[in-house]
Amino acid sequence: MSDRPGGESVAVTRTGTGADPGTDLQIIESLARGELRVAARLISRIESGDPAILPLLAALHARGGKTPLIGITGPPGAGKSTLVDQLIFRYRQQGKRVAVLAVDPSSPFSGGAILGDRIRMNRHSADEDVFIRSMAARGRLGGLAIAAGDALLVLDAMGWDVILIETVGVGQSEIDILRHAHTVVIVQTPAGGDAVQALKAGVLEVGDIFVVNKADAAGADRTVSQLREALSFRSDAQEPESWHAPVLKTQAVEGLGIDELVLSIAAQAEFWRSHPQQRATRRRLQTRLLLIDQIAETLHQRQQAGDRQQRFEQLLDEVLARRCDLHTAASRLLDHAMK
Amino acid sequence: MSDRPGGESVAVTRTGTGADPGTDLQIIESLARGELRVAARLISRIESGDPAILPLLAALHARGGKTPLIGITGPPGAGKSTLVDQLIFRYRQQGKRVAVLAVDPSSPFSGGAILGDRIRMNRHSADEDVFIRSMAARGRLGGLAIAAGDALLVLDAMGWDVILIETVGVGQSEIDILRHAHTVVIVQTPAGGDAVQALKAGVLEVGDIFVVNKADAAGADRTVSQLREALSFRSDAQEPESWHAPVLKTQAVEGLGIDELVLSIAAQAEFWRSHPQQRATRRRLQTRLLLIDQIAETLHQRQQAGDRQQRFEQLLDEVLARRCDLHTAASRLLDHAMK
Repeated sequence: MSDRPGGESVAVTRTGTGADPGTDLQIIESLARGELRVAARLISRIESGDPAILPLLAALHARGGKTPLIGITGPPGAGKSTLVDQLIFRYRQQGKRVAVLAVDPSSPFSGGAILGDRIRMNRHSADEDVFIRSMAARGRLGGLAIAAGDALLVLDAMGWDVILIETVGVGQSEIDILRHAHTVVIVQTPAGGDAVQALKAGVLEVGDIFVVNKADAAGADRTVSQLREALSFRSDAQEPESWHAPVLKTQAVEGLGIDELVLSIAAQAEFWRSHPQQRATRRRLQTRLLLIDQIAETLHQRQQAGDRQQRFEQLLDEVLARRCDLHTAASRLLDHAMK
Repeated sequence: MSDRPGGESVAVTRTGTGADPGTDLQIIESLARGELRVAARLISRIESGDPAILPLLAALHARGGKTPLIGITGPPGAGKSTLVDQLIFRYRQQGKRVAVLAVDPSSPFSGGAILGDRIRMNRHSADEDVFIRSMAARGRLGGLAIAAGDALLVLDAMGWDVILIETVGVGQSEIDILRHAHTVVIVQTPAGGDAVQALKAGVLEVGDIFVVNKADAAGADRTVSQLREALSFRSDAQEPESWHAPVLKTQAVEGLGIDELVLSIAAQAEFWRSHPQQRATRRRLQTRLLLIDQIAETLHQRQQAGDRQQRFEQLLDEVLARRCDLHTAASRLLDHAMK
């Protein structure tokens, strides 16, 4: 059992610290002091899937959960990077220290997020109170949301005032990653209504704030009203005590509409503070979906580590012998797990 | 328990037929008679995620596994559809009856596979021994590989001589779907080596036959030799008793190289027949990964159906209270499941 990834983390939670508590505690203290190089090295280890980091992550998780996490997503070309850049400047004006995790679920070869990053890195490189880090998909797509969550634990331990999570695209991978965010901002551009048409139902459901960027382009008002109409069909649209996602217009390049976006993000955070039950319901749903992802990810890690467990292999035998189909095998395993 | 998706399928496997065996048996007989409309309706129900179909799928699984499944994937524009078209003609010349399942893991709004389908539909519409059906991503991406497997059970029950599974792209979703195939064909085009560079390691590992299509374009020979070099680093490349994936050149539009591809597919099938142990190892690995996907999918289905199970909810409480991190929670649940 000891050679299984994840095994160590069980021990950690029991003892409260890792196998080498001195080292893990030293790392945690370095993070609390804001040592960027320590954070960058940890995130690289998370990206590469180093299982030895699990005890530390468990310790960070136990201490974490304090920093507001704001997720920002939208299709390539929507102006997300510029919008994030503007948000950084506003938060810096408020004296807030800002970290950005830019996650690119597309191919590691696309370089999209990384390019945008470098530009912003240069712009903020003199500012020690801004930290921008990108993550790319290295292994399984499903694992990226988990890895992003682990990287957020590292950032959370550093005492930033706000953490922005930027993802490229509006697909399932982005929705998965946004499960970590307390406030989800979806960025769109005017596109004659096509953008709204193409928005996956899942994206409409998870957004807390919708932004139509490049609002000086033709069709902006139409996109806004179409988004509002689409949102009126959301499952929570009729509930009086739920947050009703606003649709804002911005021109990120000119810095227009950013103040309204900052206010809207603050209002959303205030809504969670004043509606603890709704907040708990949302966190529970997000965490339930993350735990499902994590179960699949842990199964994949065990499979790759050559870890074979009897009950799973027996069910596999049944499927291969066609005495049991995949649906039934999974149900049986889960029924047993839940007992 | 009875309102949980998947619950019914357990009962089916125990009794050998569904709650209404007459109806399920009638459907199975209709499929065996080759009734295309029955098959098309079932695949639509699979696409829409109808849980009432699970007992029938369990019965089909118990009876299935006889038809050769050939997976074909490659990036958009590689000429996959034309290649599949040519394969259909060769198999028809051999008197074989052919079914094609075209799966598009990209947005349901892209219409890529569906457009290609319509063209081919017209071309083969007079031929009752060819059936082409497309499937698009409706819900979660992870669920598409499972849904494709269910659709393949339906086709498998119809007595086709060969089933082609065509997927668009070369990402993780395609790799997941190809786990159903007995023989995996990866289609590339000459692209000055960039195509090989961009090939995900996972794609190189799962391919049984590599095809450089549009072989009259500049750089074809270089692409072939680069692919061969990349394949020489494959984990099984040095094993004398393993299948060594050939790299073929085709010009699908002109019908050149197709005979060699057909022969290579047959040789690969013959390799499996003469190497039952290697075949069993491969099927076991593929099915293990499918079972992991299925577990995640079943967890998602239960979550969406509002099915709450005590142990899972207790672990969720622990995570939300930060007494346990996601990795540890997943490990605990799986350790209990495997006991």
